Amino acid sequence: MDSMTSPATQATRGPVTRKDVARYAGVSTAVVSYVVNGGPKKVAPATEAKVQDAIRVLGYRPNAAARALKLGSSETLGLVVPDISNPFFSLFSHAVEDAAAELGYALVLSNSDGNLAKERRNIRNLAARQVDGVLLASVLFEPDLEVLETADIPSVLLNQERDAPGFNSIGVDLAAGARMAVEHLISHGHTNIGLAMGTNVSGNTDGREVGWREALQDAGLPEGPIVYHPFTRPGGYLAGQRLLASVNRPTAIFATSDMQAIGLLRAVHEAGLSIPGEIAVASFDGSAESEYSWPPLTTVEQPVAVMAEAAVAALVGASRGEKPQHRIFPTKLHIRQSCGCP
Amino acid sequence: MDSMTSPATQATRGPVTRKDVARYAGVSTAVVSYVVNGGPKKVAPATEAKVQDAIRVLGYRPNAAARALKLGSSETLGLVVPDISNPFFSLFSHAVEDAAAELGYALVLSNSDGNLAKERRNIRNLAARQVDGVLLASVLFEPDLEVLETADIPSVLLNQERDAPGFNSIGVDLAAGARMAVEHLISHGHTNIGLAMGTNVSGNTDGREVGWREALQDAGLPEGPIVYHPFTRPGGYLAGQRLLASVNRPTAIFATSDMQAIGLLRAVHEAGLSIPGEIAVASFDGSAESEYSWPPLTTVEQPVAVMAEAAVAALVGASRGEKPQHRIFPTKLHIRQSCGCP
Repeated sequence: MDSMTSPATQATRGPVTRKDVARYAGVSTAVVSYVVNGGPKKVAPATEAKVQDAIRVLGYRPNAAARALKLGSSETLGLVVPDISNPFFSLFSHAVEDAAAELGYALVLSNSDGNLAKERRNIRNLAARQVDGVLLASVLFEPDLEVLETADIPSVLLNQERDAPGFNSIGVDLAAGARMAVEHLISHGHTNIGLAMGTNVSGNTDGREVGWREALQDAGLPEGPIVYHPFTRPGGYLAGQRLLASVNRPTAIFATSDMQAIGLLRAVHEAGLSIPGEIAVASFDGSAESEYSWPPLTTVEQPVAVMAEAAVAALVGASRGEKPQHRIFPTKLHIRQSCGCP
Repeated sequence: MDSMTSPATQATRGPVTRKDVARYAGVSTAVVSYVVNGGPKKVAPATEAKVQDAIRVLGYRPNAAARALKLGSSETLGLVVPDISNPFFSLFSHAVEDAAAELGYALVLSNSDGNLAKERRNIRNLAARQVDGVLLASVLFEPDLEVLETADIPSVLLNQERDAPGFNSIGVDLAAGARMAVEHLISHGHTNIGLAMGTNVSGNTDGREVGWREALQDAGLPEGPIVYHPFTRPGGYLAGQRLLASVNRPTAIFATSDMQAIGLLRAVHEAGLSIPGEIAVASFDGSAESEYSWPPLTTVEQPVAVMAEAAVAALVGASRGEKPQHRIFPTKLHIRQSCGCP
């Protein structure tokens, strides 16, 4: 009986197929596929055990490489971020992995460490691996993706606030978000509102700076002091020290990321000033960390899960020949205590 | 001249090879390989430009799938963690990506969300993709890795404090680390030291609980109150609220992760108690977040980068037939202000 063929015998007559496994386990080939791929349909535990047993006995290996060659797909997406240990990107990558898995794609992760040469090397590696698409949070506004275009690999740029013609991109309306936060600080009666702005290499004025300025102008208020330091905890700490030392010390500060705000809070605590009593703070991102700082941060929340799904959907669309487009998402203000609310 | 063959002509006579690219660019095939793989050797910018130009003109695709079939390797490692947005795992995965890239491997990331069924599905998917090795932070002490063994894929268990026979594993000496932290709190004169212990599903007593108890016993002190809540910020917040409400309220608390400690700090602040004056705190992990909490946390630091390198090295060793072993790493106490030090 064919289903009793031993593994050794199998080996001499070519690789074991999904059909062999199905016959041995007494199930359909579709069921074998569900077990191997973990879906899309559920399989009863007893049936799954039979299939796993057949896979073990027959020494079946689904052979992803052969499948990739056959279908012209590695069923893999690549994600390049500056630093996965930045809470915004770790949250985002978790959401991307969920969205990719839902469609049967695995996620290859790489960090550029904010270094352009490393970013390009990562992209080249992903192209060489023939991933089905690349999600890129670039250090540049218009990165060089020729190596992906040459290999017909679709891409989507993350964290883009403006349309980069010819690119698929997603982002939030930074200016509108920042406006909300600054208007909220104004509603608490502040008239001297400083800005702890992150630094970027693009040379463009960041929408968060634009939104801060517009909110002040519309309220007829002068611009408070601005300092530029990296989008990091140490960057925010330095920004806080400098803003507190300014001649015209602000009574409220808008920080352009939660991580900067966390560093800034430390500088204010160390200076012995109360938050929000003497210095009110609002920030941007809506990370989990912002909820557990002291005091908890009022912050502009980015819709991370929705953006991750949209980014993966954009890659799928691109592979179907859809034209590149820029997708922009709204933010919302998450009010906690750092702004002065009870 | 063969090197002038147009892409269309190439297509009719089979796929473009690395040799074709080398000839067109006037370089060796090794140089093409360095450009495509981003290493291991550096290529002069002008030479790289010539090679990239040849790749573009000839339409060369390195074809990772074909290479994987040929060498029996996908040049990929899989990493399964409970949640990449947990700062410990995001830091760890960054270090693993670095160590893997150093050896020419890409990293496929997946999250189990602490769910055993999802962890098993992720492992099955990685086996089906024929990754060259799997790094697993399991929800179980001795996970079921039969699907990997069947496919001859080596694995290494992360975050393991004890030897799991037959498994490659790495971890830190949790008990020794916890002891250091609790002894330090004792050195500040505390005699009632509580424990905010994380929950795990393994049923084994966690080394951090053992270390806390031993340090107290050796100092002739009674055990302070213990509470068990998840290894998360909200878990630590609840733990803090319960410890502060205990009849015999401790004057110092050891939290078994930085995330718990961050939540605990919030509970202490909300109760209007001073840290470290009325409640001293020490924790475990040494994450970046611990440096920017208020006050900054005294914490037991895990050697994340060293462990990540060792985990990748263990996979390489296993593929060469080395026997499974358990590797244990020392921790060190990072003293900041939450313990009472200036």
